[in-house]
Amino acid sequence: MNKVTELLKIKYPIIQAGMVWCSGWRLASAASNNGALGVLGAGSMYPDVLREHIVKCKAATNEPFAVNIPLFYPQIEKLFEILFEENVKIVITSGGNPELYTKRMKDAGMTVIHVVANVKFAQKAENSGVDAIVAEGFEAGGHNGRDEITTMCLIPSIVKAVNIPVIAAGGIATGRTMLAAMSLGADAVQIGSRFAISKESSAHDIFKNHVLSAKDGDTVLTLKELAPVRMLKNEFFQEIKSLYNRSGSKDELIELLGRGRIKKGIFEGDLVDGNLEIGQVSAIINSINSVAEIINEVVSDYKKAQENLFSF
Amino acid sequence: MNKVTELLKIKYPIIQAGMVWCSGWRLASAASNNGALGVLGAGSMYPDVLREHIVKCKAATNEPFAVNIPLFYPQIEKLFEILFEENVKIVITSGGNPELYTKRMKDAGMTVIHVVANVKFAQKAENSGVDAIVAEGFEAGGHNGRDEITTMCLIPSIVKAVNIPVIAAGGIATGRTMLAAMSLGADAVQIGSRFAISKESSAHDIFKNHVLSAKDGDTVLTLKELAPVRMLKNEFFQEIKSLYNRSGSKDELIELLGRGRIKKGIFEGDLVDGNLEIGQVSAIINSINSVAEIINEVVSDYKKAQENLFSF
Repeated sequence: MNKVTELLKIKYPIIQAGMVWCSGWRLASAASNNGALGVLGAGSMYPDVLREHIVKCKAATNEPFAVNIPLFYPQIEKLFEILFEENVKIVITSGGNPELYTKRMKDAGMTVIHVVANVKFAQKAENSGVDAIVAEGFEAGGHNGRDEITTMCLIPSIVKAVNIPVIAAGGIATGRTMLAAMSLGADAVQIGSRFAISKESSAHDIFKNHVLSAKDGDTVLTLKELAPVRMLKNEFFQEIKSLYNRSGSKDELIELLGRGRIKKGIFEGDLVDGNLEIGQVSAIINSINSVAEIINEVVSDYKKAQENLFSF
Repeated sequence: MNKVTELLKIKYPIIQAGMVWCSGWRLASAASNNGALGVLGAGSMYPDVLREHIVKCKAATNEPFAVNIPLFYPQIEKLFEILFEENVKIVITSGGNPELYTKRMKDAGMTVIHVVANVKFAQKAENSGVDAIVAEGFEAGGHNGRDEITTMCLIPSIVKAVNIPVIAAGGIATGRTMLAAMSLGADAVQIGSRFAISKESSAHDIFKNHVLSAKDGDTVLTLKELAPVRMLKNEFFQEIKSLYNRSGSKDELIELLGRGRIKKGIFEGDLVDGNLEIGQVSAIINSINSVAEIINEVVSDYKKAQENLFSF
C-alpha cells in the first residue's frame, strides 16, 4: 500500500495512460482487472462514444477505472455531463487550466488528477484542489510540455514543490524504469507506450508492429508552435520538417496537419501519412503482450531490479 | 564493489564530470580524495596548462584520477603526448570518433572511457576497444547528442546493447537521482552540474550563485546546427534565439558565438554575454558545497532512498 494505491483503491501504483485511439474499454478494463488503474482516453471519442465505453468498462470490471479528458476538447461541457451522469469516480485532466473544472468535479465527489510538465503547473493544480498529479517528462509520447524537462529532472522538482501524490510519466515501460521513477520520489507511475501496443489496445496491428521496430532516436518532439507532440519520424514528419526548413507559416503548418492524422496513423495503421505518436521508450519495447503479461512482468522485473540494486 | 569501482580502483561508483572551466586539479583531486573518480577537463586548457594540472593533481592525491579529452580539440596530438609523458592512467574521450585514438591509449596500458549519447556510438565505442561508456542523456549540461534521448530512455537501451560497464550521465546530482540511474541498469554515475558549482570548482562565484537560482525550464538545448549545447536562457541565448527567429545563416551563428563565450560565462562570471552551460538538474541544486559534503550527502541520501523504496 502507498499513497496512490490508497487514494485510488487499486492494487499496484501503476496507471495505464489514457491515450487517443488506444485506450477504449478493452484496454482500460484489462488494466483495472489486473491491479492497475485503467483509463479511458476521451480525447479521440465523440461524447456518445465515450458514454458507450464507460458503460462497457463498468460491465467488464468491478475495479476502479478513470477517464482522461483533454481540457482543449471542443465539446468539453458535453463530456463533463456524461462523466456526472455516468457517475465516473476518477477523472484525469490534461492540457489546460486545472482551475476551470476541478471544483465542480470535487463537489461531485470525484477524485481528480491533473497532468503537468513543470513545477508552476503542478503548484497551480495543487492549489486548484486536485488529489494527485501526473508529472510527464519530455520523453513521453503524444502531447507534451514546452519546457522539455525530462522525467529524471521533473520528478524530483515536483515532488519537492507539492504535497499531493506525484505519478511519474515519460520513459516508463518496464520494471527497471518503474523502479527508477519510484527512486526519484514518485508515488506511482503512468505507463503509456507499452500499453499503446498491448493486445487490448485499439491501435491498428500495423502501428503496433511498427513500434516494435523503433530504435533510440526514432521519435521527435515537434509542432512546438501549436501544441508540442512526440511522434515517430515517418514521411509525415519529413513533410513537417520540410515546411520548417523553408520557414513555412503557422497557417501552412495547420493546413499540413489537417484533420484525423492521429486516427490515420494509430487506428488505421497508415505509416506514411499518419501521425505516429509514441514515446522515446518505444526503443526498448520489443514485444506485443497482453495487459496481464505486461503488469506481471513489470512487477516481477521491479522486484528483481530492486533486489540487485547497488548498495553502498 | 561493482564493475566500475573494480575497473577504476575507486571506492564509490561516482565519476566527477570533466567540465570546461570547472574541473581543474582542485576539483579533481578533491573528488578522488573523497572516494569518487576525479576528472580534469582538458577542453578549456592549453596543453601546458593541462600538464600543470596533471602534475598538481598527482601531488594532491594518491588516488586514481582521469583526464577528459574532447576529440574535437584543435591541438589534440599535443594533448595525447602529454597524457603519455605524464603517464595518465585513465582517459575519458568525448565528442568524436572513438576509433581514432583508443588503440594507442590501450596499447600504452591506459583505461579508456568514451562518452556517447546513442546506441550506435555505444556499440562503435565498444568495438573500438574502450573499457567503459559514459551514456549521457538530453538533460545534461554542455555538449550533448543530436538525438535528444533522455537518461531514462538512453540507459536501458545502452545497457542492453553493450557488454562493457555503463556510466549514466545527465540529470544526476543527488542520492535519489543516482539511485534512479542505478535502477536503470547503470554501473556508475557521472555527476556534472553539482560539482560545477562545488567549492573546489574553478567556476566564478557569480556563476555558481546564479546556478542556485535556476528553476525547471531555465535551460535549453540549442546550437544544434553546430554542436548541440545545453545552457541557461540568459541574454546571450536570447541573441541566439533572435538570430534563429530571423532565419540567420550558420556563418552569422558562428560569428555571434565568437570565441571565449564559455570562459566568459563560467570562469569570468559574465551572466549577460557568457555561455552559461549547465544541466537541467540545476533546478534541484540549492547550495554550494564542498566535494566532501556532496559525496557524503549523495551516499547517505542514496541509502535512505533505497531503504524507503516502494516494494511490491
